[in-house]
Amino acid sequence: MKENKYDNEQFFVKYSQMDRSRKGLSGAGEWHELQKILPDFRNKTVLDLGCGYGWHCKYVSDHGARKVLGTDISHRMLQTAGEKNSAENIEYQCTAMEDLDFLPETFDVVISSLAFHYVRDFETLVKNIYRWMKADGVFVFSVEHPVFTAYGTQDWYYDAEGNILHFPVDNYYYEGARDAVFLGEHVIKYHRTLTTYLNTLLQTGFELQHIIEPQPPEDMMQIPGMKDEMRRPMILLVAARKR
Amino acid sequence: MKENKYDNEQFFVKYSQMDRSRKGLSGAGEWHELQKILPDFRNKTVLDLGCGYGWHCKYVSDHGARKVLGTDISHRMLQTAGEKNSAENIEYQCTAMEDLDFLPETFDVVISSLAFHYVRDFETLVKNIYRWMKADGVFVFSVEHPVFTAYGTQDWYYDAEGNILHFPVDNYYYEGARDAVFLGEHVIKYHRTLTTYLNTLLQTGFELQHIIEPQPPEDMMQIPGMKDEMRRPMILLVAARKR
Repeated sequence: MKENKYDNEQFFVKYSQMDRSRKGLSGAGEWHELQKILPDFRNKTVLDLGCGYGWHCKYVSDHGARKVLGTDISHRMLQTAGEKNSAENIEYQCTAMEDLDFLPETFDVVISSLAFHYVRDFETLVKNIYRWMKADGVFVFSVEHPVFTAYGTQDWYYDAEGNILHFPVDNYYYEGARDAVFLGEHVIKYHRTLTTYLNTLLQTGFELQHIIEPQPPEDMMQIPGMKDEMRRPMILLVAARKR
Repeated sequence: MKENKYDNEQFFVKYSQMDRSRKGLSGAGEWHELQKILPDFRNKTVLDLGCGYGWHCKYVSDHGARKVLGTDISHRMLQTAGEKNSAENIEYQCTAMEDLDFLPETFDVVISSLAFHYVRDFETLVKNIYRWMKADGVFVFSVEHPVFTAYGTQDWYYDAEGNILHFPVDNYYYEGARDAVFLGEHVIKYHRTLTTYLNTLLQTGFELQHIIEPQPPEDMMQIPGMKDEMRRPMILLVAARKR
């Protein structure tokens, strides 16, 4: 059963108040690094899996893509995407990414931002993506880092006074569902090891181009809590090419 | 100043009592996975950086290598290597790997087992290795996992009764020296992020073939403490090809 947490009203309202929701790409701490590993989008047909508010679709459209398809499981997300990030060459489709089906070699580029940790079966998804892509196509995604997802709660470990001591890692090799707390709400996320993320790509036939654990940008360091982001990796960025 | 801890008598005696020292490759929890990603050694010229007791050199020699050069900073290590793992086509050389120099395209294969976390400047080393290798040559190494090296002490976090709670991660993005405790002795190890390990290879011109965080093998699970090795990654294995 695929969870559709973003159609939960309370959760969606909280999500809409995040910087990355209000400000778009410039409000996302990893964007400055993700942007660097994106391919040339001119005249490309692009798929965005778990597109959310559509900020990436709009960026891709603005950078010369021929056609952009953004997909998401959440109606609410796509409603906002339609309002905030529409363009003539962008289409939004409300389907869980596990249920998508396309003809082989449909897309030049596939992107996905912070969505794959909601997917239970990564291998099947990667095989599908590979099939949907044209040869030499580029696949770029961000996902919550295995260090961040292993323990489950996704919170720091504190002393009795509430000071951060460190970030806890546990059950690393036990992959699967975690009851994570995100925006004060319980959400199911799937933990996978780094081995699974990267070797699944390699074994499917992708060539790895970039593997980045983005650090917070200098100009965000004054945001409360941002300096602590130097203490553990939260996000993993990967760019790969279909061979 | 490069540390030569293995020439410290007390440390060396403790190291010599480890399973991986007494039993060789079969005593090393990661060997079953490392072995899988090693290339064909037949008629190859092979360099082993930080060869220690020479177990890998002997394996490479036994698997048809034409010539094997094992290098290590420690005289004691190489003395044992000469006793335990000598062969006509194996040469041992006592030099810190940072000080080695070879002609371009000298080696078909370069391997290194659990030694790079003692090296301060990984990028310079990787550039050297790339230069020393022939085109299509394979570079395989194991290193302590960034999750394991980040905090520094390399120990679990315990409750008041001494039970393991979890493994602590901190200062992940602050690379550099850590005062680690290994075999009850203080040793300087260098923490690097996964980004640095993998992207340094990619940027130097290597193609990534395998990235593995080895889990303990089933037949070692009864060894005291081994089950806890499922709780956090300790070792990272990487295989790459010179393009």
